[in-house]
Amino acid sequence: MTHTPVAIIGAGPAGLTLAHLLHHNYGIESVVFESRSRQEVEETVRAGVLEQGTMRLMRETGVGDRMDREADIDDAIELAIDGERTRIDLAGLTGHHMAVYPQHEYLKDFIARRLADGQPILFNTTVDDVTGYDDDQVTITYTGEDGGQLQLTADYVMAGDGSASPNRKLITELPGAVRSKHEYPFAWFGILVNAPKTQKELIYANSPDGFALISTRSDTVQRYYLQCNPEDSVDMWSDERIWEELHKRVSTDDLRVAEGEIFDKAVLRFRSAVTDPMQRGRLFLAGDAAHTVPPTGAKGLNLAVADVSVLAPGLARAIKKNNTDLLDQYSALAVPRVWKAQHFSYWMSSMLHTVPEDPYFQTQRSRAELRSVLATEAGRKYLAEQYVGIDLPTFEV
Amino acid sequence: MTHTPVAIIGAGPAGLTLAHLLHHNYGIESVVFESRSRQEVEETVRAGVLEQGTMRLMRETGVGDRMDREADIDDAIELAIDGERTRIDLAGLTGHHMAVYPQHEYLKDFIARRLADGQPILFNTTVDDVTGYDDDQVTITYTGEDGGQLQLTADYVMAGDGSASPNRKLITELPGAVRSKHEYPFAWFGILVNAPKTQKELIYANSPDGFALISTRSDTVQRYYLQCNPEDSVDMWSDERIWEELHKRVSTDDLRVAEGEIFDKAVLRFRSAVTDPMQRGRLFLAGDAAHTVPPTGAKGLNLAVADVSVLAPGLARAIKKNNTDLLDQYSALAVPRVWKAQHFSYWMSSMLHTVPEDPYFQTQRSRAELRSVLATEAGRKYLAEQYVGIDLPTFEV
Repeated sequence: MTHTPVAIIGAGPAGLTLAHLLHHNYGIESVVFESRSRQEVEETVRAGVLEQGTMRLMRETGVGDRMDREADIDDAIELAIDGERTRIDLAGLTGHHMAVYPQHEYLKDFIARRLADGQPILFNTTVDDVTGYDDDQVTITYTGEDGGQLQLTADYVMAGDGSASPNRKLITELPGAVRSKHEYPFAWFGILVNAPKTQKELIYANSPDGFALISTRSDTVQRYYLQCNPEDSVDMWSDERIWEELHKRVSTDDLRVAEGEIFDKAVLRFRSAVTDPMQRGRLFLAGDAAHTVPPTGAKGLNLAVADVSVLAPGLARAIKKNNTDLLDQYSALAVPRVWKAQHFSYWMSSMLHTVPEDPYFQTQRSRAELRSVLATEAGRKYLAEQYVGIDLPTFEV
Repeated sequence: MTHTPVAIIGAGPAGLTLAHLLHHNYGIESVVFESRSRQEVEETVRAGVLEQGTMRLMRETGVGDRMDREADIDDAIELAIDGERTRIDLAGLTGHHMAVYPQHEYLKDFIARRLADGQPILFNTTVDDVTGYDDDQVTITYTGEDGGQLQLTADYVMAGDGSASPNRKLITELPGAVRSKHEYPFAWFGILVNAPKTQKELIYANSPDGFALISTRSDTVQRYYLQCNPEDSVDMWSDERIWEELHKRVSTDDLRVAEGEIFDKAVLRFRSAVTDPMQRGRLFLAGDAAHTVPPTGAKGLNLAVADVSVLAPGLARAIKKNNTDLLDQYSALAVPRVWKAQHFSYWMSSMLHTVPEDPYFQTQRSRAELRSVLATEAGRKYLAEQYVGIDLPTFEV
C-alpha cells in the first residue's frame, strides 16, 4: 500500500471515530497510525461520560451494542452543596440519558469493529514526518513495528494524536493562528476502589473543604475524585486522608460513600486549550490534538466525536464529489462548539470547586450561582441540556 | 414627638418602602429622616427597572397607579451579539412583565403617599448620632431644618442612607462582620437624549467595541449607555464620539439608534459590595447602605424592596407581638438574596461587556456562554426568571 485517501494519526477517539465514519457512512478507506500497542491503547484507563449524540452515533453506526449492555445508563445526576443534594433529572428535562462508559471501552469497541471490517490500524508505528499538506498530496513518513522506515501518500491527513500533538505546530506557526490556554487553580485526585456503588447516579459535591465526585465503574469497582492542589503528588494522599476527605465532602446521615480497597491513585491536571484554525491545507486536527477541556464537564471524548462529525462528511464530499466547500468550513463549524464546551467545563468547574485563595466575594457569588441554577427548573434544564450535549452536526454528502 | 417605634434614616427606596409597609400593612408609626430637600430627592435622576415582585408590592399596597399609567411595561428585552438580536420573551417565559420606571419616580409616589397618609418625613434633617442600639432603646440625635439639635428615641432604627452610610461601620466594626467588595474593569457612560424611541423594548448589545444599552424614558426622551473606561471623564465623550460608538455597537441595517440632542452625560461606576450581617441589636441596614450592585442587572432598587419585605414583618412581629424571631433572622433571610442578585449582576456584566485586557480565552469563553444562553429556551428562561426577579418573601405577623 502506497496511497490512501485519508491518513489518520492516532488511534484515539478522534482517529478511530473518523476512520469508522469514513468507512461505514461513505465507504472511504483510510490508514490509522498509532505509536502505542493495541494492548496499551485498550488498557490505558480513562474516565468517560458519553453525550446523547455520541451514544446515538455509536448505535446508528453499529458500534453501540456493548455500550448498551455494559455502560451505566443514567436518568440523572446529583449536585450537592454542603451535603444538600439536588437531583438533575436529565431524562425528564432533556428527553436524553447519559452513559458512564470509560474512554478505553469506547476505543476497544471501535478497534474491534475496524479490525472486523478488515480495515488497517498500524499499531506500534510512529509517524516521523508529515509533508505536502500545502500542496496536492500529503506524504507520511513512518517507522513500523519492524523498525523500517516507510512512506505513504494521502489526499488528506488528520492528526488526532492527543494534547501533545507534534503536528499542531504546523498550524499554530501560521500567522494569525491561535493557541489559547487557561490553567485552573485546582486538580483532581482520582482513585479506583473495590467497593459497591454508593448510589446508581453520579454525585457532584460542592463543600467548603473542596469538590468531590462520586462516579461509578461497575457493581464492584468505583471511581471517586477529590479536588486537590495541582502541585499535589500521589504520596501526599494516604488512604486514611482520602476517606476522611471523601466523607467530609460527600457523606451525610442518609448517604455514606462506600469504602473499599484503593488500587489506583492519580492526579489529574485541569487545563483548557483551544486551537483556531484546526486546519491547514490538507492537514486537519481533531480531538485533544486541537483542544483540551478540564474533566468536570466530561466533554473531551464527545468533542472529538463532534469534530469528526464535521470532518467525515467534509472529507467524503471532497473525495467523492471533488467539492471542498464543507472541508474549507471545518474550523468555522467546529470551533464554536469547542468554545461552548470550554464554557460549560469552565462554568461547572468554577461553580463546583472551592479555591481558598479566592476573594470572599467570588466564593460567595459562585455558591449563589450554583444555588440559583439548582433552585429553578430553568436553571436545572440549562445545565442538563449542556451536560447531555447538543446534537451532533449532520451534513449531506 | 419624642418617641417613635421605628426611626428610619434616609428617604430612598429602602426607607420610604419600609415606612409605607409598616404603616399600610401593620399600622405602625415611624419617622423618616432625610438630609436632602424633597425637591432634591425627587429630582435626582436615577434609572430603574422594576422586578415583578416590586410592581406587585406597589399595586397591592396602593402605590402602583401612576406606575401602571406611566411606566414602560414591557413583555421582552433583546440581547444582541455583533448586531444579531435575540428576543428574550419575559412574559412568555416567566408569565411576568418588567417596568422601566426611574427610581426618582418611584420615590415621588412613595413620598406623595406618605404625606397623604399624614406620616412624617423630616427633609433637610441630618442625623448626627445613633446610640443605644445595643441596649433597650435607640436614641437619634439630629439637626432639623431650623438648625436646632433634637433627640428622638425609638424601639428600632433602620439605616437606609445609601452606599456611603456612616451607620454601616457600627456593624462592620463588629468581630466577624464582613464587608465584601468587587471592582469591575468597566463603567457606563450614560446619556439622556431628546429623541423618539429606537424601539419599544430595551436592547443589551455585546460587540467587539464594547457593551451598549438602549433604554427608554418616554416617547420623547431616551436613556442610552455605553461601556467606557472607569477612569473616563465626561469631557472625553463628545456628542460625535457618542453617536459613532452607539451606531458601531448597536445599529444594523434594520435598526438605527435614534439620535437627538444630548442634554445629560454622566459616568456610572461599577461596584459590588455586600455587608453581612445587616443588623446589630436594634440597628438594621437595608438597600445601598448594606449592598451595592452594578447597574447591569438593574437590581439596586429591587434589592432594597426585598430587604424591607423581610424587615417590615420582622419589626411588626417584634413591636406588636413582642416576638423577635423573624427580626433575629433578618440577615440570614436577606443576605442569600443579595448574593443571588450579585451573581446575576456580575454574570450579566461579565457576559455582555468586552475587556480588551482580558485573556483571549476568557473573551471567547464568555461570548460562547452568551451564545449558549441565547440558543436555547432553557437558557433564555434561566436569564428571564432572574431578570424579572424571584418573588418577594412574605411572612405572617
